Amino acid sequence: MTSEENARVLDRIDSPADLKTLSAQERADLACELRQVIIGAMSRNGGHLASNLGTVELTIALHTAWDAPRDIIVFDTGHQAYPHKLLTGRRDSFDTIRQGGGLSGFLRREESEYDAFGAGHAGTSISAALGFAKSRDLRGSDEHVAAVIGDSALTSGMAVEALNNAAQLNTNIAVIVNDNSMSIAKSVGALSYHFARLRTRPFVQDLEQRAKEVLDHIKVGKKQLHQAADGLRLGMAHFVSPKDGPLFEQLGFSYLGPIDGHDTEAMIEIFRAVRDMKGPVLVHVVTVKGKGCQFAEDDARCFHGVTPFDPECGEFEKKPGDNPSWTSVFSEVIEELAEKDRRIAAITAAMPDGTGLKGFSEKYPERFFDVAIAEQHAVTFAAGLAAGGLRPVVAIYSSFMQRAYDQILHDVCIQNLPVILCLDRAGLVGDDGPTHHGVFDLSFLRMIPGIVVMAPSSAQELADMLLTAVQHDGPSAIRYPRGSCPAPWQKRAPEALPIGRGETLRAGEDIAIVAVGPQVQVASEAAARLEADGVSAEVINARFVKPLDEQRICEAAERCGRMIVLEENALIGGFGSAVLEVLSDKAPECRVARIGVPDRFVEHNKPAVQLAGCGLTAEDVAARAREMCADKAPAAAK
Amino acid sequence: MTSEENARVLDRIDSPADLKTLSAQERADLACELRQVIIGAMSRNGGHLASNLGTVELTIALHTAWDAPRDIIVFDTGHQAYPHKLLTGRRDSFDTIRQGGGLSGFLRREESEYDAFGAGHAGTSISAALGFAKSRDLRGSDEHVAAVIGDSALTSGMAVEALNNAAQLNTNIAVIVNDNSMSIAKSVGALSYHFARLRTRPFVQDLEQRAKEVLDHIKVGKKQLHQAADGLRLGMAHFVSPKDGPLFEQLGFSYLGPIDGHDTEAMIEIFRAVRDMKGPVLVHVVTVKGKGCQFAEDDARCFHGVTPFDPECGEFEKKPGDNPSWTSVFSEVIEELAEKDRRIAAITAAMPDGTGLKGFSEKYPERFFDVAIAEQHAVTFAAGLAAGGLRPVVAIYSSFMQRAYDQILHDVCIQNLPVILCLDRAGLVGDDGPTHHGVFDLSFLRMIPGIVVMAPSSAQELADMLLTAVQHDGPSAIRYPRGSCPAPWQKRAPEALPIGRGETLRAGEDIAIVAVGPQVQVASEAAARLEADGVSAEVINARFVKPLDEQRICEAAERCGRMIVLEENALIGGFGSAVLEVLSDKAPECRVARIGVPDRFVEHNKPAVQLAGCGLTAEDVAARAREMCADKAPAAAK
Repeated sequence: MTSEENARVLDRIDSPADLKTLSAQERADLACELRQVIIGAMSRNGGHLASNLGTVELTIALHTAWDAPRDIIVFDTGHQAYPHKLLTGRRDSFDTIRQGGGLSGFLRREESEYDAFGAGHAGTSISAALGFAKSRDLRGSDEHVAAVIGDSALTSGMAVEALNNAAQLNTNIAVIVNDNSMSIAKSVGALSYHFARLRTRPFVQDLEQRAKEVLDHIKVGKKQLHQAADGLRLGMAHFVSPKDGPLFEQLGFSYLGPIDGHDTEAMIEIFRAVRDMKGPVLVHVVTVKGKGCQFAEDDARCFHGVTPFDPECGEFEKKPGDNPSWTSVFSEVIEELAEKDRRIAAITAAMPDGTGLKGFSEKYPERFFDVAIAEQHAVTFAAGLAAGGLRPVVAIYSSFMQRAYDQILHDVCIQNLPVILCLDRAGLVGDDGPTHHGVFDLSFLRMIPGIVVMAPSSAQELADMLLTAVQHDGPSAIRYPRGSCPAPWQKRAPEALPIGRGETLRAGEDIAIVAVGPQVQVASEAAARLEADGVSAEVINARFVKPLDEQRICEAAERCGRMIVLEENALIGGFGSAVLEVLSDKAPECRVARIGVPDRFVEHNKPAVQLAGCGLTAEDVAARAREMCADKAPAAAK
Repeated sequence: MTSEENARVLDRIDSPADLKTLSAQERADLACELRQVIIGAMSRNGGHLASNLGTVELTIALHTAWDAPRDIIVFDTGHQAYPHKLLTGRRDSFDTIRQGGGLSGFLRREESEYDAFGAGHAGTSISAALGFAKSRDLRGSDEHVAAVIGDSALTSGMAVEALNNAAQLNTNIAVIVNDNSMSIAKSVGALSYHFARLRTRPFVQDLEQRAKEVLDHIKVGKKQLHQAADGLRLGMAHFVSPKDGPLFEQLGFSYLGPIDGHDTEAMIEIFRAVRDMKGPVLVHVVTVKGKGCQFAEDDARCFHGVTPFDPECGEFEKKPGDNPSWTSVFSEVIEELAEKDRRIAAITAAMPDGTGLKGFSEKYPERFFDVAIAEQHAVTFAAGLAAGGLRPVVAIYSSFMQRAYDQILHDVCIQNLPVILCLDRAGLVGDDGPTHHGVFDLSFLRMIPGIVVMAPSSAQELADMLLTAVQHDGPSAIRYPRGSCPAPWQKRAPEALPIGRGETLRAGEDIAIVAVGPQVQVASEAAARLEADGVSAEVINARFVKPLDEQRICEAAERCGRMIVLEENALIGGFGSAVLEVLSDKAPECRVARIGVPDRFVEHNKPAVQLAGCGLTAEDVAARAREMCADKAPAAAK
């Protein structure tokens, strides 16, 4: 126990209670250790690096000043909560983060009593914290409640809805804004200008005399706390001039800041004081994304979410294989189409890199719109562009598109406007887990009248579908998964597809396997296996989930009498159900097996494991087909 | 043509161009005429009264100052756009408003070139207007663009997302806030306090000398307009003191106001000036909801959306029948349950009356939360309350719940929190039409793992389901339609239902009719008709769309071999598809017909007409059953 390794401060921290007795020097050492551990684990497992490096001191200070889990701390998304995990009993399992069976990359109520509220999508923390605060008030309890939220998550509509509601609720709550002036890319919008203006002011803790004065008041005794808190409020409010006062004051919040988010000791004092302030308080903490890791600080955008890298120099491990990623194909094609068609505009909700629109933004800045974390506005803004004669392409991850469901239905589809929705990360996403899977889009989109829903099975098909969408005079959606295309891109000029027409890739007699997206590849491989067993399987690439190629599917159903439908989407209401609906009306004799994501939230793991768990492998599909054909062709029976 | 009737100014207004030459007196007369026409039509057809009476002068002034349809005016929801309809060529058809085949109660792009963008849900106009503005910029055109939005619609997250994006887009756009300090009920939240503070200032037009000065500058000549507009901006900005400056300035908007929204002449001048201002401008117009109609002014909340009434005294026509409304049953039961169970809290998004929570708010004010038009926040706030140990009930109309889809999935269901969603107005809603139908909820809810989805067929069953939900330790949803229960309420104390268990109302051999919600009544009536024809129909009230009573349904399917599924929901992915999914796996021999809402947006009309259009009548269902049984029981053949 005398080795240097065991001398880590971190090894003595089993819960936040262990932080209380540390010296300032130990806390400083702890901060370094947390960074080392996080960089180490991320270099091996991948994950969210830069944002978590920015919140190390903030988290140490908050857990020192407050008493979790009695006090409730709601972190907005898990991007910033790795230090929190390390300080709340998960130090020894931290190496398992984002691995199958290991820690989640996000907060999870099931994982720890310190994770008050889970989150993978941005902007939820203030609403949830207000819920905790009011339930506390109704129970007559007195724990403290805070939301820790990134500056850019504050641009999401629901966060502002919560701010608007907070003053009205007349409850004690702290909203701690982790302002690193970045969402994943650079923050945009009026709110970010506002924060930028506030950041130009001197840090609260630098104005020592003033702060001391106020904080000394606080320490006088419990009786005077209320009064002192008011004094603090007034004192701090003075730190901003009335002419350019923060808009949060106008929303009924007391504003406190800006605060140096890497000055642990000052933050401890401030967070202690904040606990005793009345009403809603907004604490503005300025942090540096990637802090303490030079390459992550230098390019926080690139080191937001990372794949494994060399912890010394930040060089990413080379990915094997040379199939292009779906995102890169989208990038390339949409830029080419936009060159010829000036009606094409592109919209992202704070993710120009992730969605592949970085190049577009550089080539066509006047037609590129990053609207901040604002999926609802993104879609209705696109509807307005479309009504004005453009062909807007809205690129948003499938699971985040859930935020804009009403806008897709109400603003785009009821009006039949030619908005093109591009849903990246559709399907099972691997390490990020349940909050990020894009496995509901086929179900929630196809029920909307008038929309065309496509899923490409190859790079070229994605290109063709993009052109199809651009030429279509109504709403359309294209969904494609995370990761790489199943094969190299045999690139040719895109050709528009006939809408609602699939293709038969292989003729067969015994059973038809119908698939969309990359599952078409699985279907083909299964058919090849079945051929070896003497089972003749037809393979249909449906291409369109809506409108369905009813004729092709019904014809195959009647001929083969057996059908397997594959999709990387929820089995409930998805592509398989679309097939059932049409067969029920038109070819009811056919037996159908649907293989897809079952009715549960799929835990984080490697994508291959997740797919196998759903039976979405060529082997499983072939086995299922043999089972279904057992009574038909004796040769095919196992 | 000399009769008094024909001397109306309104009769000379075929398009906004005809407004330009009117005298001030004629405009004043026109305002009176518009009110008469609106009150008359609403007294006969029902519709949105109070809000439209408030925007008469605003609309006359805007259409006088601007040049629609070249200039783009986006109205936020149609609640305030009846005067616009009357001034844009729809005077003679106005009597048909909200009637089958007649004018829509909302804006519709198909209805008129003056309806730039349709809307039935609040808060969409700024996003759409920004889209129009940017498409204009990209086209190199110069039309003017405005959004006309209610003060309370500004509380919806997407409206704030759009405000946040506006300054960044660097485009000319006017956001005209129709501030009547009401949403449907009284506006709530920090933003409404903010407006209230602004309203205490003197009207811009009262400060005559100042306004004259500034406006005279504007008239100098086109060359100087830019400069003059800047002057105006500075001049107007002075109307508010810097200490309490409106937060819109901080979001990058020029603020202009407050303006008396019933002073047509002053507004014409101001709207003309606004056209030439640069960048985003927020014009704050103060109106009186119900203006010019004493009973509507006195109770604007009650006269927001109305059924037919006596135009003289405002007395509503008595509704026939004495079956209670679904909403009133919900009200009564939730109040009774809350009396015994202190964990129950209730949340509305600006609709305490419509959702039946008015009484709850009076009895349990500390457990009642009106969060403003903020469905996203409503649901995640509820998730926070649930995580804090309460049993929150979120009552939101089905179509508005679409706004909170991600929150239901991501914040409630992934965390398995006991939030109770009550979806009123589920099904076809009649006169309001496509934007308000609640026909997607069964589809979009049932795909989410872990949620219990119920639909009551009677008043008592709604009571039982509410208790079931309160006792259930996970998320649940109850959906019920607009209007009255199919039968009187034989009230007894609520009993919790076994989750996932339906009931067989009638045994039968030839065919099974499975239904949920009020369609159970249709199923029973169809079965009675079929009995007369010698067809023995089983009737199953499924009660639960999720989890499905698989055993009961499969058993009936195997026994009868024929099944009809009824639902007042989209056929795509809905209850019928749930039945197909289970039968496909477990009883594939059974023939199934699904009757529900087909894959199109159903136009406004009387609910009975809409239901008949879907085949959801006892007669149609019986006919379909006879058809299906034709080969089975000769006696049953037609």
